[in-house]
Amino acid sequence: MIKLHDDERIDYLLADESMKIIQSPTAFSFSLDAVLLAHFAYVPVKRGNILDLCTGNGVIPLLLSKRTEASITGVEIQDRIFGMAVRNVELNNLGGQVSIVHGDLKEMQPVLGQSNFDVVTCNPPYFRTPSENEHNHNEYLTIARHEVCCTLEDVVKACKLHVRPGGKVSMVHRPGRLVDIISLFRKYKLEPKRLQFVYPKIGREANMLLIEGARDGKADLKILPPLYIYNEDGTYTEEAEAIIYGRD
Amino acid sequence: MIKLHDDERIDYLLADESMKIIQSPTAFSFSLDAVLLAHFAYVPVKRGNILDLCTGNGVIPLLLSKRTEASITGVEIQDRIFGMAVRNVELNNLGGQVSIVHGDLKEMQPVLGQSNFDVVTCNPPYFRTPSENEHNHNEYLTIARHEVCCTLEDVVKACKLHVRPGGKVSMVHRPGRLVDIISLFRKYKLEPKRLQFVYPKIGREANMLLIEGARDGKADLKILPPLYIYNEDGTYTEEAEAIIYGRD
Repeated sequence: MIKLHDDERIDYLLADESMKIIQSPTAFSFSLDAVLLAHFAYVPVKRGNILDLCTGNGVIPLLLSKRTEASITGVEIQDRIFGMAVRNVELNNLGGQVSIVHGDLKEMQPVLGQSNFDVVTCNPPYFRTPSENEHNHNEYLTIARHEVCCTLEDVVKACKLHVRPGGKVSMVHRPGRLVDIISLFRKYKLEPKRLQFVYPKIGREANMLLIEGARDGKADLKILPPLYIYNEDGTYTEEAEAIIYGRD
Repeated sequence: MIKLHDDERIDYLLADESMKIIQSPTAFSFSLDAVLLAHFAYVPVKRGNILDLCTGNGVIPLLLSKRTEASITGVEIQDRIFGMAVRNVELNNLGGQVSIVHGDLKEMQPVLGQSNFDVVTCNPPYFRTPSENEHNHNEYLTIARHEVCCTLEDVVKACKLHVRPGGKVSMVHRPGRLVDIISLFRKYKLEPKRLQFVYPKIGREANMLLIEGARDGKADLKILPPLYIYNEDGTYTEEAEAIIYGRD
């Protein structure tokens, strides 16, 4: 029997009700961003090692486990949220495939070594560290959303450290940071290979980007077709629905 | 009376037949890329100075003259194509607004000074310099399409030299070079502000990109809605048609 703390609740993760996930509105709830990243990332089907940094409640490892038999490791810095991720692995009987590590992504070398992963995924905090009084009043959400515990450069550096040469790094972020992301990927020899922009609806600016780089790869970037989330009437597009409900 | 040389011909540049352009299948014909750039670029409406590097037969200055009363300077390195641009200015009675300079964009400081332009546009050669025997057999086309006379870095450096602080630089290029372009824009303090991807049709990868940077600008990139060129049935989309036929 899985224990729930405070305002935690259990939600279905996919439409087929095959997976459940513990969430908390005040500590950590997964977002569309994580779902899109778990769908976008290349993963080996049968074997290999996947690392998910900033794993939160483990939503990306959970979703990836539907697509691969590779071993998946999630890293989360916040103790309470790490605890949610651990219970989510248990709740879905994924202990044989997914393990969650409690720690700071900047200090994982003693634990995870280097160049040990085929794929690294990350849905990092999006916002530059604001001044103390602009922080989200909720510390859990502040750390998950703002660059308080790690900067974008810390994240890219950790991805580079842990992915093997030729391995892939996938990230979701905001378009406003594309220039930073591309500059840092190049700096850390993660050559961008696939880039997809997510648009809320037709005619609007993109509000999310998905990027995949290959460590020590050759320059050869592809810009994928855009992904639209909503139709004009506010319903999900067919494509978004297939991803969100796990039918794709 | 304008003289035509060799296989040159005069085409209408816009659907309203208000502009004509001298082209040559073996020396220089303008492409959709130039038309899209001339539409994408921000230009001041009433006054100012605009510079178009790699101007070819002057197609971008011609098109921009429909959108602005600013003074426009084109720079072209190839003597024969420079001659076409000069005649195109004459053919359209634009001598009061457009001037064409014959020269190498790497050596324009003595002629054009520095930081003198509000806007710089460029449709540069797209392809890295191939080995001698892979060159296009036609030297005109080789120089226009390959980085023979200037590299992408030379182009970005020249844009930076000639645009004023706060001024804008617009370029059209291939998606495969996005990482290079963004890295070079940052290196030369041209902060990317607007980025648009052009897709041949729905569901395909992008085959062109339009980017605008602001010299010494703050980081704040917008990803514009995608531009599709063809409908499924091979006809132009409404949006593309409006741009190409000058109705937008």
